[in-house]
Amino acid sequence: MSQERGITPRAENFSEWYNDVIMRAELADYSPVRGCMVIRPRGYGIWELMQRALDDMFKETGHQNAYFPLFIPQSFLAKEAEHVEGFAPETAVVTRGGGKELEEPLVVRPTSETIIYSLYAKWIQSYRDLPLLINQWANIVRWEMRTRLFLRTTEFLWQEGHTAHATDQEAEEETRLILGVYRRFMEEWMAMPVVTGLKTESEKFAGAVRTYACEAMMQDNRALQAGTSHNLGQNFAKAFEVLYQTAAGDLEHVWNTSWGVSTRLIGGLIMSHSDDTGLVCPPRLAPTQVVIVPIWKSDEQRSVVLDVAQRIEQELRATGVRIQLDARDGLKPGAKYYEWEGNGVPVRIEIGPRDVADQQAMVARRSGGKAPVKLADLAAAIPRVFSEIQDGLLAAATTRREQNTVRSVTKQQLIDLMEGPGGFAYGGYCGGERCEIEVKDRTKATVRVLPDPEFRSDPAPTVCVWCGEQAVTEAVWAKAY
Amino acid sequence: MSQERGITPRAENFSEWYNDVIMRAELADYSPVRGCMVIRPRGYGIWELMQRALDDMFKETGHQNAYFPLFIPQSFLAKEAEHVEGFAPETAVVTRGGGKELEEPLVVRPTSETIIYSLYAKWIQSYRDLPLLINQWANIVRWEMRTRLFLRTTEFLWQEGHTAHATDQEAEEETRLILGVYRRFMEEWMAMPVVTGLKTESEKFAGAVRTYACEAMMQDNRALQAGTSHNLGQNFAKAFEVLYQTAAGDLEHVWNTSWGVSTRLIGGLIMSHSDDTGLVCPPRLAPTQVVIVPIWKSDEQRSVVLDVAQRIEQELRATGVRIQLDARDGLKPGAKYYEWEGNGVPVRIEIGPRDVADQQAMVARRSGGKAPVKLADLAAAIPRVFSEIQDGLLAAATTRREQNTVRSVTKQQLIDLMEGPGGFAYGGYCGGERCEIEVKDRTKATVRVLPDPEFRSDPAPTVCVWCGEQAVTEAVWAKAY
Repeated sequence: MSQERGITPRAENFSEWYNDVIMRAELADYSPVRGCMVIRPRGYGIWELMQRALDDMFKETGHQNAYFPLFIPQSFLAKEAEHVEGFAPETAVVTRGGGKELEEPLVVRPTSETIIYSLYAKWIQSYRDLPLLINQWANIVRWEMRTRLFLRTTEFLWQEGHTAHATDQEAEEETRLILGVYRRFMEEWMAMPVVTGLKTESEKFAGAVRTYACEAMMQDNRALQAGTSHNLGQNFAKAFEVLYQTAAGDLEHVWNTSWGVSTRLIGGLIMSHSDDTGLVCPPRLAPTQVVIVPIWKSDEQRSVVLDVAQRIEQELRATGVRIQLDARDGLKPGAKYYEWEGNGVPVRIEIGPRDVADQQAMVARRSGGKAPVKLADLAAAIPRVFSEIQDGLLAAATTRREQNTVRSVTKQQLIDLMEGPGGFAYGGYCGGERCEIEVKDRTKATVRVLPDPEFRSDPAPTVCVWCGEQAVTEAVWAKAY
Repeated sequence: MSQERGITPRAENFSEWYNDVIMRAELADYSPVRGCMVIRPRGYGIWELMQRALDDMFKETGHQNAYFPLFIPQSFLAKEAEHVEGFAPETAVVTRGGGKELEEPLVVRPTSETIIYSLYAKWIQSYRDLPLLINQWANIVRWEMRTRLFLRTTEFLWQEGHTAHATDQEAEEETRLILGVYRRFMEEWMAMPVVTGLKTESEKFAGAVRTYACEAMMQDNRALQAGTSHNLGQNFAKAFEVLYQTAAGDLEHVWNTSWGVSTRLIGGLIMSHSDDTGLVCPPRLAPTQVVIVPIWKSDEQRSVVLDVAQRIEQELRATGVRIQLDARDGLKPGAKYYEWEGNGVPVRIEIGPRDVADQQAMVARRSGGKAPVKLADLAAAIPRVFSEIQDGLLAAATTRREQNTVRSVTKQQLIDLMEGPGGFAYGGYCGGERCEIEVKDRTKATVRVLPDPEFRSDPAPTVCVWCGEQAVTEAVWAKAY
């Protein structure tokens, strides 16, 4: 499973660099099935840590997990007009089962609103059954023409939350609550800063009233939509007759929300932090956080060094550190460094005979820097090193984003920016679809979000970047994945 | 979501009882999609605990998780002759994608040997890459004609381990290791005793050299195949050209194993322990382990009792107990007891004004028995109560199995047993296919396993139960799910 070939530098070809990092770290692989990827153990290990963290956050906010069918009758998809228009063209369809043609073809779920709300109609009777707060971890299929590992694949893994509420206000609060959960996860776990806000009509989820999104800036200055939270209003409740009896005895439609993040996040993680040597992974999401590389020349040294290395391994593992000791024979320390750097292990502990004599070890950080630490201090030092790395990655990504953000952008600046280095452009927006289309045609940039208050410019822009008419809102433009 | 209707007694109709228990506890529901079920939060909570326990055991034994595509090209399935014969008739097939007919139809995975070993062929180069020990948590589709919640559904959730080894012996050891992991999980977590052993040729996995299984006895005396572990020999390695270079430089085919358990285990859990009042769930797998039901008449009492109940809740939660306080107004304690009994919560703590005065609470066990415990002793008592319940359930299920097991069975006894109460029948077996078929035709019983040494009779039977010829082995017969 060796990966001998080098990594294309980012500056040369960002897209090849991205694939090279994935191959070198063995995060994923192409499969013989069109558009489908394989998530290899090192990549899946990151996903498991992401799942655990998100799942804990969902449960802390009162959500429970459940599991709904993979297949959706074609007629269900058609019940919500915008929804079917958005999703029908990209579905995979089962037409044969058990050797026979099916009477009604089954769609492999591209998202589960329809199947889930058909069941909510049965489960929800009265206001006492509300709110209903359910999440599902599942695989999803959307027939994509151009696929990229993690970012856009025909099959991907995700979670989708689906909630039902008694009032519009509660649904809106839920939509915003989850947007906040996503933002917190992306910042605190992925060290990936995001801008949050509202999607325009043309970019919102097919079937939603309002879509909120988290947008992150990758190292090529493109935006990655990293998570979305939808206020569905009563659109699906009406399509599937999800009714509840109010305390006063009336029958009303419920208000729904849905929200999701996917294995696409792993792509975002890679493009936020990694470098021309390979993967850089924040410690909180690193399946292996520390690797110990023992150094020896003679057999005698080997035995002494390995003994200490094993003790370090045990001691750190006992404190909850995900650690590996690389005691392979026949491979020089330099070759091991190279391999573990490519794999994105955040911390490497090097220990040789001299270190053992000095009762210390060298602690090297994947993201840069190296210093000796006394063996007696290691267990206390490592968590500190982790948080410094984690904070450092978030700070670096935030600085990079700010450096590639232009506020109060003018029309010409917007054109120049998108033709040149790219980045996030903040400017006034008249709210008209025409300007949105023209900007896209001219610059390939789209409105990523109408930013939430904490991201807005002060003073607020007063005129539309494109048409010069009065601005009704501020918008963030960028070229996107 | 109330479930007002009663539960059919087991003695009246076991199969209706089973469905009633599931509906009453809201573990699962039927879906509008033929043969597919919905796993509701209370059922999924059990599955999550099962997953966590098994996943820890897999990781402790050196396995890693990964994820492979849902779709398998139809030609892949055909590469292993027995395999395609076994699985092709029950597949769901995608023939359209993105609005177009596919050139090659895609099968929705009925099991993943073919797609996984096609990738192993790429990943495995030399003996240094072995053993390769990978597990996948995934959904599976097998087009079933007659479905039953959890036990047999068109889509189900499972884990499938797929390993590659340098020698036959290592593969056999892995197959047996996992069989042991499964048995330990079923006994220690599910409180469900199993008989392990080898499947006959006619019952083994399509494509395996040898299949081992865990067989549990349900309360209707039928056997449930709860988990299987397959030694695949070099069958798939040859079909997919999975070769490795030995230390000596030769090219050899690897040796594979695969093994799996599914959401069917939840069905086994239900049919092992539950009673005519509803679900009985062992504490280790109960999503809610303790419910506190406060009792009051006046508002004043309410405030005093709730205050103590909340303190108990916090104290026990802090020790890791999964606990809920049922403080709903407008529902009498008796109604709450009824509801939580149906849901299978192992321990109920009742506390009223008199208990508060006496500084005690009543601890009632779902599986029977009730005693007062001093509040100061609760935190220490609950884990003890849990292990008593857990051990008690395993002991009861083991006793029930032994009472319904006949050793040294004769032909007439076998016929009478299977026409009568059912159960496990141990007897000599000539090893011939003809006897196997005749027994099945006459009694509907099949050979569940050729039992492992620790389950074999002493002295060993010498003649075949059916034909009277010399026995080559002992067999366990039962009617099965």
